[in-house]
Amino acid sequence: MKFSEIGEFGFIESIKKECIASLKDVIKGIGDDCAVFGPYSGRVLLFTTDMLIEDIHFLMDKITPYQLGWKAIAVNLSDIAAMGGRPLFILLSLGIPVEMNVELIQDIYKGMKDICEHYTVNVLGGDTVASPDKLIINISLIGDAKEKEVIYRSGARPGDKIYLTGNVGDSSAGLKILKTEISPPNSIGSHFIKVHNEPNPLIETGRIIATSGLAGAMIDLSDGLLSDLGHICKQSGVGATLFRSKIPLSSKLKLLASRVKFNPLDLALSGGEDYILLLTVPEAKTHDLELLFKDKRPSPLYLIGEIREKEGIGMVNDDGSTEEIGVKGFNHFIS
Amino acid sequence: MKFSEIGEFGFIESIKKECIASLKDVIKGIGDDCAVFGPYSGRVLLFTTDMLIEDIHFLMDKITPYQLGWKAIAVNLSDIAAMGGRPLFILLSLGIPVEMNVELIQDIYKGMKDICEHYTVNVLGGDTVASPDKLIINISLIGDAKEKEVIYRSGARPGDKIYLTGNVGDSSAGLKILKTEISPPNSIGSHFIKVHNEPNPLIETGRIIATSGLAGAMIDLSDGLLSDLGHICKQSGVGATLFRSKIPLSSKLKLLASRVKFNPLDLALSGGEDYILLLTVPEAKTHDLELLFKDKRPSPLYLIGEIREKEGIGMVNDDGSTEEIGVKGFNHFIS
Repeated sequence: MKFSEIGEFGFIESIKKECIASLKDVIKGIGDDCAVFGPYSGRVLLFTTDMLIEDIHFLMDKITPYQLGWKAIAVNLSDIAAMGGRPLFILLSLGIPVEMNVELIQDIYKGMKDICEHYTVNVLGGDTVASPDKLIINISLIGDAKEKEVIYRSGARPGDKIYLTGNVGDSSAGLKILKTEISPPNSIGSHFIKVHNEPNPLIETGRIIATSGLAGAMIDLSDGLLSDLGHICKQSGVGATLFRSKIPLSSKLKLLASRVKFNPLDLALSGGEDYILLLTVPEAKTHDLELLFKDKRPSPLYLIGEIREKEGIGMVNDDGSTEEIGVKGFNHFIS
Repeated sequence: MKFSEIGEFGFIESIKKECIASLKDVIKGIGDDCAVFGPYSGRVLLFTTDMLIEDIHFLMDKITPYQLGWKAIAVNLSDIAAMGGRPLFILLSLGIPVEMNVELIQDIYKGMKDICEHYTVNVLGGDTVASPDKLIINISLIGDAKEKEVIYRSGARPGDKIYLTGNVGDSSAGLKILKTEISPPNSIGSHFIKVHNEPNPLIETGRIIATSGLAGAMIDLSDGLLSDLGHICKQSGVGATLFRSKIPLSSKLKLLASRVKFNPLDLALSGGEDYILLLTVPEAKTHDLELLFKDKRPSPLYLIGEIREKEGIGMVNDDGSTEEIGVKGFNHFIS
């Protein structure tokens, strides 16, 4: 059987059960945004990694080198944000085509350096190697949090409300524009491209949620709303209902959709790389959460649905009817 | 300028000064086998990463999938051994060609799992992605040690004795056989291929040295004896003298060299991937070190030279004369 036939999730499933040699100090292994271990001096460490390969995860002519460096770090920071942690240390592996210009690599590194400075993260080293043809970037990131602050995917319970901390779909629209699947005027398109190429990880938002102790489960949207909500449901052993009219779409996305004729909700549900947070909150705590966001304003906050006992994801239409929908996520691995 | 013109070390040099945003908790950044941070509960954490790319670092027809998995982890464990640490947690990024057989990937994973079990290291997760054509493996490894146990490259002082914990050159001979640069009978060749493809990281040896407090500086031999000794010299601001007759060569290497006519000392000095430890020890402590190795027998121990004030590396010939030699290391990046 070929790798393309089982894909990432199938492969991970096949190795998952065998990977822990000793449970000592392991709080969370495979199955969340970060692995968690410790505690050390009352804090736990969060550990995450991402590999980005040219022509699979990025195209050199669709993103500037500076943006590529920024984004490579941003998507990892977002995994720390998703668990409520504080990012600390990075190791950076670069596989560099021998013919690549050093200036271009330095621009990539400038983007990395700037985002690291912005979030006070240290690059402690890494590995720089030659690559036969493609540029390869692997980031390993360590963060920390107090043990009881960490928010896992597995903490959603029936009745919990589901919130998003921003709009969904803009990044995915940016990708469609970059791939020239849609071709709006530049004046409209540049916003989406910027959202797609320069994501801002919601570290502060994640920290505010984590220290409040109000959330049951949390994840960052990288695969797409339905897919990532599906991860929460699977890890928590629950299902979810979304309210169609409550899915937050930017006015720009609605405008774009009206111009180039597509359904913005499709991008919002199944596009990816929004890098906002999805969290679940027990009903008794929703008032406190909404007050907290009104007070601190780290991000917008949108109530979009609720956790239910029944597995799967249902969508409540505007007429009050509910339809069950499949989990159509953003999958890099099936082209 | 192209990457191939400045190489790994040039690139690292160019980014090194800019990579620390805040010194808090950073004990060692770029410039040693691992980064070091903490302390947490009296212990520091060691953090290292390595990227291996098909056709650059390995050829699929020269190593079995099982060996590849084993070796990918082993070279990282060796970095922890080099600082006297205890390996703990791994994140594994795999870039897998979509056409690759799942069974082959599972064999790679089996090799990884076995070495992790052997050294009680946990794979906590990672990232599995599609790759356009080459197999890519990135390992990120966290270990720990008591803060005062950690042995850096920078601790060598003039007068210190230099020791090796094993023979040098066998791995490099294995590579030459695999590349058919030399073609001995199979009965002789298989030993070298095994040494090259299935290295055993000297975790226990490193721990015994670290807990003894006897070593000034330590490194694992991955780039080659001269190159790695050069790293110690550079980080410590010193030079070194080696005794030609004391460089430990296996009897098998001497036999091979006599059969196929090459100078085994060349491989021993400039070959790479021996994955043994090189350490420096103040003269007053050498007796204790030798006793310790006689008692615990974690590895052989060979006295090969001494640290001197004058920069560079000198070689004392059998007739007592000394010649200065260049640092010719094993460099993956200039083909």
